[in-house]
Amino acid sequence: MATQRKKLIIDTDGGVDDAQAIFMMLDSTVYDVIGFTCVRGNSGVNQVVRNVLKILTAADKLSIPVYAGCAFSILGQHVIQNSYQGVDGLGDCQSAEEPDVSILQREAATDVIIRLTKEHPGEITLMCIGPLTNLATALKVDPDFSCRLRDCYIMGGNYYGKGNITVSAEFNFHADPEAAYIALEQLRCPTTLVGWEVCEENGPTWDQYHQLRSFSGKRNQFLKAIEQKPVAFSIKQGWNYSPADEFLAACMLSPSEVVMETKHVYATVELGGKLTYGQMVVDWNKVLKKEPNLTIVTKIDKDTFFTALLNTAKSDI
Amino acid sequence: MATQRKKLIIDTDGGVDDAQAIFMMLDSTVYDVIGFTCVRGNSGVNQVVRNVLKILTAADKLSIPVYAGCAFSILGQHVIQNSYQGVDGLGDCQSAEEPDVSILQREAATDVIIRLTKEHPGEITLMCIGPLTNLATALKVDPDFSCRLRDCYIMGGNYYGKGNITVSAEFNFHADPEAAYIALEQLRCPTTLVGWEVCEENGPTWDQYHQLRSFSGKRNQFLKAIEQKPVAFSIKQGWNYSPADEFLAACMLSPSEVVMETKHVYATVELGGKLTYGQMVVDWNKVLKKEPNLTIVTKIDKDTFFTALLNTAKSDI
Amino acid sequence: MATQRKKLIIDTDGGVDDAQAIFMMLDSTVYDVIGFTCVRGNSGVNQVVRNVLKILTAADKLSIPVYAGCAFSILGQHVIQNSYQGVDGLGDCQSAEEPDVSILQREAATDVIIRLTKEHPGEITLMCIGPLTNLATALKVDPDFSCRLRDCYIMGGNYYGKGNITVSAEFNFHADPEAAYIALEQLRCPTTLVGWEVCEENGPTWDQYHQLRSFSGKRNQFLKAIEQKPVAFSIKQGWNYSPADEFLAACMLSPSEVVMETKHVYATVELGGKLTYGQMVVDWNKVLKKEPNLTIVTKIDKDTFFTALLNTAKSDI
Amino acid sequence: MATQRKKLIIDTDGGVDDAQAIFMMLDSTVYDVIGFTCVRGNSGVNQVVRNVLKILTAADKLSIPVYAGCAFSILGQHVIQNSYQGVDGLGDCQSAEEPDVSILQREAATDVIIRLTKEHPGEITLMCIGPLTNLATALKVDPDFSCRLRDCYIMGGNYYGKGNITVSAEFNFHADPEAAYIALEQLRCPTTLVGWEVCEENGPTWDQYHQLRSFSGKRNQFLKAIEQKPVAFSIKQGWNYSPADEFLAACMLSPSEVVMETKHVYATVELGGKLTYGQMVVDWNKVLKKEPNLTIVTKIDKDTFFTALLNTAKSDI
Ligand SMILES: [Ca+2]
Ligand SMILES: [Ca+2]
Ligand SMILES: [Ca+2]
Ligand SMILES: [Ca+2]
Repeated sequence: MATQRKKLIIDTDGGVDDAQAIFMMLDSTVYDVIGFTCVRGNSGVNQVVRNVLKILTAADKLSIPVYAGCAFSILGQHVIQNSYQGVDGLGDCQSAEEPDVSILQREAATDVIIRLTKEHPGEITLMCIGPLTNLATALKVDPDFSCRLRDCYIMGGNYYGKGNITVSAEFNFHADPEAAYIALEQLRCPTTLVGWEVCEENGPTWDQYHQLRSFSGKRNQFLKAIEQKPVAFSIKQGWNYSPADEFLAACMLSPSEVVMETKHVYATVELGGKLTYGQMVVDWNKVLKKEPNLTIVTKIDKDTFFTALLNTAKSDI
Repeated sequence: MATQRKKLIIDTDGGVDDAQAIFMMLDSTVYDVIGFTCVRGNSGVNQVVRNVLKILTAADKLSIPVYAGCAFSILGQHVIQNSYQGVDGLGDCQSAEEPDVSILQREAATDVIIRLTKEHPGEITLMCIGPLTNLATALKVDPDFSCRLRDCYIMGGNYYGKGNITVSAEFNFHADPEAAYIALEQLRCPTTLVGWEVCEENGPTWDQYHQLRSFSGKRNQFLKAIEQKPVAFSIKQGWNYSPADEFLAACMLSPSEVVMETKHVYATVELGGKLTYGQMVVDWNKVLKKEPNLTIVTKIDKDTFFTALLNTAKSDI
Repeated sequence: MATQRKKLIIDTDGGVDDAQAIFMMLDSTVYDVIGFTCVRGNSGVNQVVRNVLKILTAADKLSIPVYAGCAFSILGQHVIQNSYQGVDGLGDCQSAEEPDVSILQREAATDVIIRLTKEHPGEITLMCIGPLTNLATALKVDPDFSCRLRDCYIMGGNYYGKGNITVSAEFNFHADPEAAYIALEQLRCPTTLVGWEVCEENGPTWDQYHQLRSFSGKRNQFLKAIEQKPVAFSIKQGWNYSPADEFLAACMLSPSEVVMETKHVYATVELGGKLTYGQMVVDWNKVLKKEPNLTIVTKIDKDTFFTALLNTAKSDI
Repeated sequence: MATQRKKLIIDTDGGVDDAQAIFMMLDSTVYDVIGFTCVRGNSGVNQVVRNVLKILTAADKLSIPVYAGCAFSILGQHVIQNSYQGVDGLGDCQSAEEPDVSILQREAATDVIIRLTKEHPGEITLMCIGPLTNLATALKVDPDFSCRLRDCYIMGGNYYGKGNITVSAEFNFHADPEAAYIALEQLRCPTTLVGWEVCEENGPTWDQYHQLRSFSGKRNQFLKAIEQKPVAFSIKQGWNYSPADEFLAACMLSPSEVVMETKHVYATVELGGKLTYGQMVVDWNKVLKKEPNLTIVTKIDKDTFFTALLNTAKSDI
């Protein structure tokens, strides 16, 4: 019964990997996506809105409301220099037609997150697959709102100091380190995080990738189109296929099959540092004597993860 | 005509010096105080609400709406260790009776600031005499709101690196350095600041202070009571009488008489630093090649300032 | 032939684990220890001198010259709060009699390191098992001296951000982060490092530890005595036996048997950071586009390591 | 009697303003310059050596020994991007012929400073008019050496956070912030500092400058030649004539006439900070509860300062 499904808000920066992760969640029989909140990240927030509408068009799910969120990081940064996912943050794919932005909701992302948790206390799951600015701002306006969340899932950060945008920081955390700090320090609901190391180590092979994109269907063709640029670039660089948000989706959808190991720890974010600004800091040995605030996924099953991607590809007919 | 007066919102942390500054603004024929927004600072925000209600009780102005704002700094700090103004932030004075907090407005401070600037675009002056958390949060939720402000006045920061709470930082800025940074970087209306150096150098003598408190009247007796502890402590320490928020009030009320010199500069806030965290940084020589964002009051007329205090004391009958 | 052995200077802070590592190196047929330079670390440098003389007394090697080095870190820190190895940094063991400090050489550690590399250019190996202050100071006085070193081996730092003294930093690096930074940035000879993660993961079991200390002999009894306090404390805390300097010694003595994996990378030290001050930062993905400056030991053979300890214990008759 | 004069070592980075300051000290009947130690600053240390030899050639004082010092800052920075004093740091003046560098002493700067204080304990004044790297390195090698100094005079830093190279930092301190920190924290002799604010506010007029350079004489012609570039640039920018090292020289030579006000305070250097790295931090209100370590010159007599420059110009015949 759909009414029994868990209510899910997806907070996204509308990137290439967000698309596949969103498709995975939309297929779920466990979660019922009740809204998308957009946040500046791979591109400016207005472009993110357009990207999310394109993704929902490909999935025939424009009925789910989309909300615009923060246009700047907590400290005010706007554009992030990262051409990997294209200037538009969604692969600069020409084929996808421009969406009708008039269907964007008027309510601001932070307001809607706060309002919905008041209407459905303890029932909403928040899935964050972009910088954490919306979440942090909601925590500033209403410090208690997270007590009314069921739980929160985050893709971002790192636990061994391995960076993918700077030497020490992961993209989503580095895009708004203060927001990541606020989130980890002030969330008061069960929170689970998939960090960069898990993504880096468990990506499918390129053969597996091509198998995924061999299926027809509207969503698969959409993914193939938006992935063209980053995939070509990755192969040229000798990189692996390293999706990110999809790992979080898989861990949420099939925790018992995908997640092999987690650690319940105190973790925070370095806000100083010449090189480590935005790095996640994990207190493995309880040096700081703080209560654990985070469940980190440290090992996943690579094969089951690929199967999850494959199932999403196959379900698109 | 009262309707011609400039609409003023006072954002306050309800401290001892806030009280006298509020009395000064309430006497004004130029400004019409349309609301008070409370922010954690000298004490927790719930206590600040009580303090502001006490101040308004002494002024017979409980008709002006009071709103609660942020309970934590941007990065989440709660209590500030600073017993100077008392545990309650208002001199721990027993005589003032507990106010009726049921008259507190339900709307959150950030929401009301954003809403009122929409209802009265270009007409509202914001006067900030506490940490800048409410202002910064409003800028996060609605980055454009300050374009709808008439202007903004801030007591806080320093321009010669002289600290009064740490070696390098002034109290209001240090209480929320990130908020001060956000405010200076993202405000888009004319902004004037009175920093700590002006306060330190232009305080009245103790003789002058005692002259001020020789008047009767409900407000004067209230000020005398709440100032008892900090005044006794200051005299014991060999310190001068150094009110702070009152300087901003005097500069707003009598700019041509009180303000002797201003500088229009680019200024920001140090967010790193082992010693300088929260220090205001002024680019006197345009090294950073940024547009000026702030008018700093660098010299005031000491005598005219005292006269302003005296007039407020005399007006209380 | 002894004359064919590689000349070795051991730069040490005279701690409990330094003792066993020194015994291992003194047994070596590959290295010829030509001097000990002392550096403040587990205790003040004068105490370190006494500790090293005690260690050499136990090994009957007082003929090797000992030199005093830096008494303060680069930024001037003196005492390190870390009672784990005892107030004297050598287990507060009463039985070892006070050494005759009059045999301490007059020449300063930095001077002797510089001089010996001039006398034996390209022939000297430097083994650092304490904070890197002596090494950094020598690099300041004579930036070219390391070009005359054969190679340099360092126990210190971490490569996954795991701290053992702060949440993010390893003891030797944290004891003088600026020195560690100077060393990594300015050394111009092949440099190999064993970091904390290797030590944490590959310590012997307590059963194995007790087997080690079951042997008689002067050195073993000495080790047993100085290890008493830290071992008791570790067992009480539920910690493993985690020697540190011994891992570096084993890697130097039996590289082909002990070292299973190394990475040649650019690594440096975070000198800012609220939590990460002193953390080693490894540029795994060449984000900084710098030349590799360090060979990090990332995997060792646990069993062979224990065998190395065992051989040292057995050789003491 | 020359033998009664105070022994002076001048530690210099051989810049344009160093030249005039050196001429002032060479004329002194109070100080006897016994050596020059060179430090990287306005140019690399080898160029500094050449610059100092040129300056001494102009002054006919090649008999005073010159020593080369540190080629890199404490953290290893080499070249400072600051073309103001020319690529060679001495105005890129072609006329001055290349000096004979073979007369450079072999002894390193740090060694000679340490040795001379041992030979003449309590008799030597150290005058620092460049980055403080040599001084800091000497303090690392021999922490006690400054106890054997008579006193130390420093041109560098700032006390109101006014920068001349970055927004918050003065050139000499910013060129090696860690060295400045080490110097202020670890010097154990009376230390007097002239900071940037004094230089900025008390420079002669351009008319006065032209009066200074109207005199003939070898030194004046030399100064005129090396100052040509920076003077032309300053006039074009609308800047004042702001010599720096000369202020320190004047304060040392005529303290009672030139120095109008000093403050004895605790001061240190910010080593973190995004904007304030290298800023001097003065604890005006004893917030840090540390013993004063520095005498800061806060006011000088502008006219007497100019007279000092004039006297040096006139003495050159
Ligand atoms: Ca994303
Ligand atoms: Ca206030
Ligand atoms: Ca050691
Ligand atoms: Ca100079």
